[in-house]
Amino acid sequence: MLNVTVWNEFRHEQNNEVVKGIYPEGIHGAIAQFLNEDFSVKTATLDEPEHGLRDEVLKETDVLIWWGHMAHDEVQDEIVEKVKKRVLEGMGLIVLHSGHFSKIFKTLMGTSCDLKWREADDKERIWVVNPSHPIVDGLGEYIELEKEEMYGEHFDIPAPEELIFLSWFEGGEVFRSGCTYSRGNGKIFYFRPGHETYPTYHNPEIQRVIKNGVKWAAPTNHAYPVYGNAKPLEEIKPKSAE
Amino acid sequence: MLNVTVWNEFRHEQNNEVVKGIYPEGIHGAIAQFLNEDFSVKTATLDEPEHGLRDEVLKETDVLIWWGHMAHDEVQDEIVEKVKKRVLEGMGLIVLHSGHFSKIFKTLMGTSCDLKWREADDKERIWVVNPSHPIVDGLGEYIELEKEEMYGEHFDIPAPEELIFLSWFEGGEVFRSGCTYSRGNGKIFYFRPGHETYPTYHNPEIQRVIKNGVKWAAPTNHAYPVYGNAKPLEEIKPKSAE
Amino acid sequence: MLNVTVWNEFRHEQNNEVVKGIYPEGIHGAIAQFLNEDFSVKTATLDEPEHGLRDEVLKETDVLIWWGHMAHDEVQDEIVEKVKKRVLEGMGLIVLHSGHFSKIFKTLMGTSCDLKWREADDKERIWVVNPSHPIVDGLGEYIELEKEEMYGEHFDIPAPEELIFLSWFEGGEVFRSGCTYSRGNGKIFYFRPGHETYPTYHNPEIQRVIKNGVKWAAPTNHAYPVYGNAKPLEEIKPKSAE
Amino acid sequence: MLNVTVWNEFRHEQNNEVVKGIYPEGIHGAIAQFLNEDFSVKTATLDEPEHGLRDEVLKETDVLIWWGHMAHDEVQDEIVEKVKKRVLEGMGLIVLHSGHFSKIFKTLMGTSCDLKWREADDKERIWVVNPSHPIVDGLGEYIELEKEEMYGEHFDIPAPEELIFLSWFEGGEVFRSGCTYSRGNGKIFYFRPGHETYPTYHNPEIQRVIKNGVKWAAPTNHAYPVYGNAKPLEEIKPKSAE
Repeated sequence: MLNVTVWNEFRHEQNNEVVKGIYPEGIHGAIAQFLNEDFSVKTATLDEPEHGLRDEVLKETDVLIWWGHMAHDEVQDEIVEKVKKRVLEGMGLIVLHSGHFSKIFKTLMGTSCDLKWREADDKERIWVVNPSHPIVDGLGEYIELEKEEMYGEHFDIPAPEELIFLSWFEGGEVFRSGCTYSRGNGKIFYFRPGHETYPTYHNPEIQRVIKNGVKWAAPTNHAYPVYGNAKPLEEIKPKSAE
Repeated sequence: MLNVTVWNEFRHEQNNEVVKGIYPEGIHGAIAQFLNEDFSVKTATLDEPEHGLRDEVLKETDVLIWWGHMAHDEVQDEIVEKVKKRVLEGMGLIVLHSGHFSKIFKTLMGTSCDLKWREADDKERIWVVNPSHPIVDGLGEYIELEKEEMYGEHFDIPAPEELIFLSWFEGGEVFRSGCTYSRGNGKIFYFRPGHETYPTYHNPEIQRVIKNGVKWAAPTNHAYPVYGNAKPLEEIKPKSAE
Repeated sequence: MLNVTVWNEFRHEQNNEVVKGIYPEGIHGAIAQFLNEDFSVKTATLDEPEHGLRDEVLKETDVLIWWGHMAHDEVQDEIVEKVKKRVLEGMGLIVLHSGHFSKIFKTLMGTSCDLKWREADDKERIWVVNPSHPIVDGLGEYIELEKEEMYGEHFDIPAPEELIFLSWFEGGEVFRSGCTYSRGNGKIFYFRPGHETYPTYHNPEIQRVIKNGVKWAAPTNHAYPVYGNAKPLEEIKPKSAE
Repeated sequence: MLNVTVWNEFRHEQNNEVVKGIYPEGIHGAIAQFLNEDFSVKTATLDEPEHGLRDEVLKETDVLIWWGHMAHDEVQDEIVEKVKKRVLEGMGLIVLHSGHFSKIFKTLMGTSCDLKWREADDKERIWVVNPSHPIVDGLGEYIELEKEEMYGEHFDIPAPEELIFLSWFEGGEVFRSGCTYSRGNGKIFYFRPGHETYPTYHNPEIQRVIKNGVKWAAPTNHAYPVYGNAKPLEEIKPKSAE
């Protein structure tokens, strides 16, 4: 059974009555709850020691889910380096919504990861553009969210290896809402929805996408590549070339 | 100077007063006119012998532009095969709007190239998502068209090698409006706008995109690859392996 | 349990003693045997009625494996069209070795699918370049085959959506040996090895790749997209726009 | 005329007689010399103040070429950040050979950029796998180098947006030798050859690739995207939605 760790900044839920009302157990609690049906789930938050990401936790995590927003700068660089190392080793990473500006996502992308945004209750339609991808399993043509924060292009990310979802917003913007990448031995899935003031993670279709994402991002058993100085030519030259 | 051939079905302009009013010289005439500033331009239409695409014409064409809609089936398969052969040899191809359903585009894509559509004067915003690409040279963040036909996802094409534009439509749809592909030695650019009942090809920004597209799709001077039976191992085995 | 159909031309095994000696049950028989452990497997061959691909067979097939070489032209266009339709509907397709020149692969790729080749017992090393991909699960850094037919670049295919394997050949060539594509709702995996005069499909690592490929190419349950004329703007315009 | 800055670590040429013999003016000098025919070229080296990359220099540079090897760690992080900022703004970047381990390349890629290597005078064949790409203009099917350092897979980079070259090495390895990426408004080209102890940059075909790369990596005039808080919905909602 896959081991999933749900990481959440967990600040809005303590400082904001609206958010607390929507996610009384925190965003991590809400996500952990629906993932529990299919996976072995732990949670971790910013204000725990080492942000709840001790070496043993990271070592045992198959897929890490990341939600952060107002306190990206408080995440210690040392922890970010450890998470990056684990992704390159094969741990899957799912970055949600405002996690686009997290240290871990920016360092894995190599770009500013900047974008446009607007908090105005825009209607959002998340269109599937990659119907054969396992991440869209069980979905229809699009997911409609009555109200969400708008994220608009240009989204300053590397061209996605796979583009899964495109969002339409009432105000006139579009956004690459579901993007996959590989880094080292690890797989990364960025999924846009989930502003803290909306009940987005209670939406069954959004939950389905995150579950599918965890399965897709699971590590393979490929032997970790060998790097550095290779054997001398004499030793490794194919017999036939002797 | 690049040789461009603008191919147009040229039926709507003869059967429909509205279209005739917008494009008195035909869509091909309008496109040829603004391309004339930078390129050596010819035109060709469906009802000419061999659809205006005799072997000499194709041989001399660096970039072919294709607009078709109601008479895709009237294009002879033999001519389609000749155009495909030229693309694989290196001729650039720019497919516009309803050309998504042309025989030449479908045979180069390998998919149905189907999509959603609506003729309802939707406002369209064509967002740039690939700001470093030469095809967007001289543009701003998006091109806005007050009224166009809607094309919506799912667009049944192979994943674009480069995704340049994403369209937003007033009615709630999105569309991958600017897509590039390579096939053999040739480059292909699909660009969505240009329904016959709107003056889209008179828009200077749309014209800029098509001009940029021609420059991008121009053939390289790479030696055409050699295929088939390679030299015997004895002959071509690297010296060092003797 | 996934339903796999292994299609084989099945001519060499009847005309050539060497091939018959290596694959007494035919290449399809050898592949079916090792797939039987994990999947529900059927076989089909060229000389059966409808090439063994009656509508019910195709309808029930989740993943189709294709091996052909000397008789590509004998495959009826009507059957090719049915297979293509099923791929666009979601059936997975795994094309092996000389299947690169099959009608079904060429029509899905849109290119000539030509390449270089040499029958000279080249040593081949199939290097993994995408270590996070499920298709390489259980493999090491590379698979070495003492003797195989050489396939060399340029391989005239569209740029793979995912490049999984690169082959090195003793004679000085390289080849993109593992390539994935999506077409419509279906996933396609091209895997190079398997010339009929070598026991390649008896190699456990090659068998592992094909098993992984079947799992990867399995259909999703995504709703088949709706194409064509969309609802009028009045009906579908978002409430907020009223 | 494009402004090119050739950056070189410039240490081997001062410490090693062999390298000094091959590149008496330094690797930067050799590259600047052949680029001078087509571009306005400056050079910069590690031991100059600010590594020769003062703000004015970076601001005026259209394309930066980077060669480094033994002293990557001596490049100041502050300068790396400035170079990265310029790439995201649109400056082209060409990273050569051992520059795969430079701070600037690693921070733009987000991976370890590790690889295999061997100094054993391997013969190298650099095969063209993307014949329609402007970077291969003027080349044949492959470039052969009698002796080079071997670089082998796995190369820990993100999947290239475009794969241009694949290298074959005598000892049994392959390598993705020509890879392109976009980051922000900037284009990046990694090109493998050029170990300091071989006269690789005196090879006319290698020179042609670097010249083509400069032209390809040149900035576009696209308006730099606007990020951050978008206009309120009331203001920007399409008229038709009022």
